[in-house]
Amino acid sequence: MSFRDAASAVRPVDSASAHLAVEHQDRLTKPHGSLGRIEETGVRLCAIARACPPPVPEPVTVAVFAGDHGVVSEGVTPWPQEVTAQMVANFCAGGAAINVLARHVGARVVVVDVGVATDIPADAPELVRRTVRRGTRNLANEAAMTRDEALAALDVGTDVADEVVDQGARMLVTGDMGIGNTTPSAALIAAFTSRSPAEVTGRGTGVNDQTLARKVGVVERALERLQPGADPLGVLCELGGLEIAALAGFMVGGAARGVPVVVDGVIAAASALVACALVPEVAGYLIAGHRSTEPGSTAALKHLELEPVLDLQLRLGEGSGAVLAVPAIQAAAKILREMATFDAAGVTDKGDPR
Amino acid sequence: MSFRDAASAVRPVDSASAHLAVEHQDRLTKPHGSLGRIEETGVRLCAIARACPPPVPEPVTVAVFAGDHGVVSEGVTPWPQEVTAQMVANFCAGGAAINVLARHVGARVVVVDVGVATDIPADAPELVRRTVRRGTRNLANEAAMTRDEALAALDVGTDVADEVVDQGARMLVTGDMGIGNTTPSAALIAAFTSRSPAEVTGRGTGVNDQTLARKVGVVERALERLQPGADPLGVLCELGGLEIAALAGFMVGGAARGVPVVVDGVIAAASALVACALVPEVAGYLIAGHRSTEPGSTAALKHLELEPVLDLQLRLGEGSGAVLAVPAIQAAAKILREMATFDAAGVTDKGDPR
Repeated sequence: MSFRDAASAVRPVDSASAHLAVEHQDRLTKPHGSLGRIEETGVRLCAIARACPPPVPEPVTVAVFAGDHGVVSEGVTPWPQEVTAQMVANFCAGGAAINVLARHVGARVVVVDVGVATDIPADAPELVRRTVRRGTRNLANEAAMTRDEALAALDVGTDVADEVVDQGARMLVTGDMGIGNTTPSAALIAAFTSRSPAEVTGRGTGVNDQTLARKVGVVERALERLQPGADPLGVLCELGGLEIAALAGFMVGGAARGVPVVVDGVIAAASALVACALVPEVAGYLIAGHRSTEPGSTAALKHLELEPVLDLQLRLGEGSGAVLAVPAIQAAAKILREMATFDAAGVTDKGDPR
Repeated sequence: MSFRDAASAVRPVDSASAHLAVEHQDRLTKPHGSLGRIEETGVRLCAIARACPPPVPEPVTVAVFAGDHGVVSEGVTPWPQEVTAQMVANFCAGGAAINVLARHVGARVVVVDVGVATDIPADAPELVRRTVRRGTRNLANEAAMTRDEALAALDVGTDVADEVVDQGARMLVTGDMGIGNTTPSAALIAAFTSRSPAEVTGRGTGVNDQTLARKVGVVERALERLQPGADPLGVLCELGGLEIAALAGFMVGGAARGVPVVVDGVIAAASALVACALVPEVAGYLIAGHRSTEPGSTAALKHLELEPVLDLQLRLGEGSGAVLAVPAIQAAAKILREMATFDAAGVTDKGDPR
């Protein structure tokens, strides 16, 4: 499915089912609202599924989109670019954090090369090779992508979403890999939330004060180039990156197929801003898996009015935080499906106000 | 196993294994420290198991201890006391939140009546009947329990821990049910953390401003009765309650058997203060499952230097938040067991500082 087809297929989520969920949760044998975030998540699942109770969202597929970034030549990260390709090989071999965590929650991992710059250093028969370009241009100096490249990357994302739903997935999880990708993410978050670069640029995988200052400077330079009133696709092209665009497409694709999409950390949050700027109805299909320690993550989620399920002080990416939220999200569906009501269980309801 | 036997059997956790865990996590293919709370939990599991990597902590048993509170006659809760017994029946029938959530994470639920005041309104063949007394005395006016009663309730807890570990459990989860039990919990937390009643007394399952003020007043009156320098058992007797004492015993029992004990919300946090005041080495075996919305929960966890795994804005009790943390805790063990190292995966380690 192309990005354009997916974008036009997204329906608003169903507020009537959400309302039924709120009412049903108030009849269950617990004080009203006492399951906090779990109840909010249950309401969201009903709105997405257009049904109350909702189906348990399983099976789950995590798609890890990998791409490289020309901006690494600015010295915004201590990691060499080759690590992107090395980690892709690690994902394909099953040894990375996302593999361990996905196995743990029963999720499938699909690894998609949408823009890795260096050679993948191993046979990786299961790697989905959809390279749009071997890394973006340097966003410090020029547009990271052309419109054609950005659209091609968006297409990769919607395509993958469509395929994995065809293969049975009923919940999607966003994953990312790309050395340097917290820099374009910070730039996108600054652009879409109108916050200052210093406010939304973080230490990523752990940079020192000097490198952080350089990152902020790079983001500032890139933003100065943005035309006032630039369209969302124009902003995406200017700032990158390929895996970020693919993730935005993946979210639109998931929404088009009517399944929840669990958003990981700061990279995915930037992608979510892109996806919702392009197709506002996508927001209803997103569940924020966790709050990353990156400041841009919190800024983006706030802008999207998404409350994260978990806060585990993670800053790894790969989809790790989103996958860790899967059991809690599935629990929210089961609460609506399996819990007894006050009437059925013969428990006195005080009916205290919410 | 009696409480006294369990107390003398608790060994300090193993700091050498904790140290190995920190070192091993720094060799895994991820930026140092980037798995945040998951890494901290992994270190704790190693210290408890005295091994790195630790075994995956499964199977899991949740023990829900139920008891009633004489203090309900002060009007500290809008719920009638009968709801304790009704909810016990609901637990035994499998319809409560804790049942749904425990099934979801593959945990067994054991329900223990240690002090329910009214009749359980149904056949409940699986209920463990270990009634010490049918409800505590009113802590607003007198000691909630005698020393013999408190010791008997502690014994129930250690006994249940010992039995379920004998039956195979390798991680224990604390659960509680008792209408009115946020009042003795707040009192215990104020007593053990030296905070003011107003600071640690919350709305429980949802009381209005007037009832909250009454709760604070009741806690203040009870604390005025405490002798300066009272021993921990004396404080427990004065403030109650039976299920709180049993939970403290359960924690000591779990620690004596060398397994992690996941602490639920404010009731369990109060019990943890009791357990650690009685047997300080127990603290190393505790994992705070979540941060309840009750202010006393945060105060108690801070006093115990426990960082909660989850923060889902829950205020239900029953063990619900602790059980929801089980997948993340098990994930922490699997990260240490299954993730590839930089060397093994051929990934370049930048070795950035933690």
